[in-house]
Amino acid sequence: MNAIIISIGTELTTGQSLDTNAPWLSERLTDLGLQVLTHITVSDDVTQIAEAFEQAMSHANLVVATGGLGPTPDDLSREALAIAIKEPLEIDDLALIQLKAFFLRLERPMPESNLCQAKRPRGCHMLPNPRGTAPGIRHSSDSKHFFLLPGVPSEMRAMFKQSIEPLASQLSSGARAARSRLLVFGISEARLSDMLNDLMTLGRNPSVGTSAADGVISIRIVARGENEAEAQNLLKNDVYEVKSRLGVAVFGEDEDSLASVTGRMLLDSGLTVATAESCTGGLIAKWLTDVPGSSGYFKEGFIVYQNSAKNARLGVPAGLIDRDGAVSESVARAMAEGCRAASTCDFSISTTGIAGPDGGCPPDKPIGLVYVGLAREGHTEVKRLILGDHLTRDQIRDRACKSALNMLRLWLIESR
Amino acid sequence: MNAIIISIGTELTTGQSLDTNAPWLSERLTDLGLQVLTHITVSDDVTQIAEAFEQAMSHANLVVATGGLGPTPDDLSREALAIAIKEPLEIDDLALIQLKAFFLRLERPMPESNLCQAKRPRGCHMLPNPRGTAPGIRHSSDSKHFFLLPGVPSEMRAMFKQSIEPLASQLSSGARAARSRLLVFGISEARLSDMLNDLMTLGRNPSVGTSAADGVISIRIVARGENEAEAQNLLKNDVYEVKSRLGVAVFGEDEDSLASVTGRMLLDSGLTVATAESCTGGLIAKWLTDVPGSSGYFKEGFIVYQNSAKNARLGVPAGLIDRDGAVSESVARAMAEGCRAASTCDFSISTTGIAGPDGGCPPDKPIGLVYVGLAREGHTEVKRLILGDHLTRDQIRDRACKSALNMLRLWLIESR
Repeated sequence: MNAIIISIGTELTTGQSLDTNAPWLSERLTDLGLQVLTHITVSDDVTQIAEAFEQAMSHANLVVATGGLGPTPDDLSREALAIAIKEPLEIDDLALIQLKAFFLRLERPMPESNLCQAKRPRGCHMLPNPRGTAPGIRHSSDSKHFFLLPGVPSEMRAMFKQSIEPLASQLSSGARAARSRLLVFGISEARLSDMLNDLMTLGRNPSVGTSAADGVISIRIVARGENEAEAQNLLKNDVYEVKSRLGVAVFGEDEDSLASVTGRMLLDSGLTVATAESCTGGLIAKWLTDVPGSSGYFKEGFIVYQNSAKNARLGVPAGLIDRDGAVSESVARAMAEGCRAASTCDFSISTTGIAGPDGGCPPDKPIGLVYVGLAREGHTEVKRLILGDHLTRDQIRDRACKSALNMLRLWLIESR
Repeated sequence: MNAIIISIGTELTTGQSLDTNAPWLSERLTDLGLQVLTHITVSDDVTQIAEAFEQAMSHANLVVATGGLGPTPDDLSREALAIAIKEPLEIDDLALIQLKAFFLRLERPMPESNLCQAKRPRGCHMLPNPRGTAPGIRHSSDSKHFFLLPGVPSEMRAMFKQSIEPLASQLSSGARAARSRLLVFGISEARLSDMLNDLMTLGRNPSVGTSAADGVISIRIVARGENEAEAQNLLKNDVYEVKSRLGVAVFGEDEDSLASVTGRMLLDSGLTVATAESCTGGLIAKWLTDVPGSSGYFKEGFIVYQNSAKNARLGVPAGLIDRDGAVSESVARAMAEGCRAASTCDFSISTTGIAGPDGGCPPDKPIGLVYVGLAREGHTEVKRLILGDHLTRDQIRDRACKSALNMLRLWLIESR
């Protein structure tokens, strides 16, 4: 069973936007046991889109196209599909009602130009879009299936899971892949690869591969079996093996983050945390509050960007800042302790550092130097990170926050 | 004059690697005045690659394919080209000498498997690779040009500049494209399209297209001219026209963000800002401090996630929270005013809302309800946003922060 993916948009063929939909779809379809033959990217030209649709339908069992479903004149995928399957466009009554309801809920009038989003070629089915105004369109005939989804990634993904995933499983009939993604922080990819060398042999089933992004290493394990149970069983054994070798360096799976995992541990043990951030500017707090229900363990945060704020909010002595500098072990310690005292939380995290691209004073205070403080009752720990000036400002801030959350995570594991 | 781009590799069709070559080539070719019709991505299957080559050559004046030129068994682009143009593969003597010289320079023996890299279909020309072992291959006939380049981005780019750029300029015979991307916030894509309808007519030069991502609409303007000056002139006129129609809704260009633009305005006028965030959990502060030098206008931020923190840090009366609820116009106002007083900044921004996925109480307090407060001396404004429960928690927080920064931006424009 095979599939073709089509991405539509002049912003893609002119290189102004990066297509993240095609790689995402490829990965999902491959996981579901389908073979992705090709991706095709076409510009907003109705003839070309129609031609791509027609050719793809003649080559593959499943075609998934994204984009060109918006309300503007350069959104031509509906027309192209009508041309490709030689059916006229008509209004779908239910889609029209849903579209009107969408604007009603937002307390806004529906612009005239949105009307086209209720249209589909005759004989096609609409796929509801719970997250936006563009419904998807499905066309099936002769055991061939064509899906047109919106280009907005969040809408596309939700619709894929709802409408295509069940069908794709069915199309791949039997043979299954089961997969897991373990997330690791605090070990280099090279060292990891030495530790898992025998599991990573080419052609082994399950296959084990690693990739690094933003300081986190993902270990992808894909097990194939004659059926779901066999694949799952093979997967389970490998996940167990990898976890036993790497221990606490594995912090989570799949969509976990250091913040979500740490938050869950705090919630489970009824503990609270507050943050005092300088160079990271609120990013730790942002991550902690990304998680629904985080008010159960996150009380408040201080962003003390200028030195006067470090003094006014956290009681860091001005003399200490003068003596050691704002980026110092002693200031990170005073920030963490001051934050814990002010917030009356069980834990507090502090960061102070030089995120660059300016402001470094090597060799003592180079760009990428960050002190991370962690305070609990009766004990404060400060870690000095040398993140390196080869990283960007964004990356330095990102790594500092992850290191801070990881310190708290390891404390929570120890104290269990 | 038009072009087709082909990317080759199973790592691309399975979604394991992201293709950066196609967007890079698209942008270059567009800039050189060619129209990129499609990208096609194919897996390491010799029949499929050959078919893609043949079809592309029949459709476009210029075809640029990347990948599949390595020395391993899954590198099949040479064979595929031989099949597509019906010529046998043969050793290129000069390429063989260069290949041997490459290994000589590295003081390593040449592995047997590299020998295939000196092969090309009869009648084709080799393109030297100064950075690696894989030469490119060029095939020209009947004013159609086909280029096969290595997939390694640095090698591909060097070879493109050396071998394709001069030809592409020549093919587009002087014609050039100039481009601009304007960024808009606070207008729906549908309304924008109504306002720019006549400029977005298909086939018009410059071409004007829109795309939306994360609440920001990008307007892409691409002008084509007989030469650089003509293209730039056409572009300038359209940029002026779009800006006059949309006014302050256009907040920036290219890599600008609402935070960077607002920050620049604050810096230019010597003004400062502080933040008081509840539902956005530090994201506004994070964005403001993404920008190097932001300590010039950003002093501090309060993340007052639990109600007790709103009272302790910003002096929001507990009775007010009890009466109106934490998500209310009055609390947003008190937060903004309290933050401005505590921080002694010129401006303060506050947010309080229901980011979901739980905690909504429709119809009065649905998920996606956010109050954004903005205080300056003698005046506070609060805006009620109904962002809609179709958005995710991330999206609600993102839109709330953008709306808040945009309010500040509009204030700064007004007060100029």
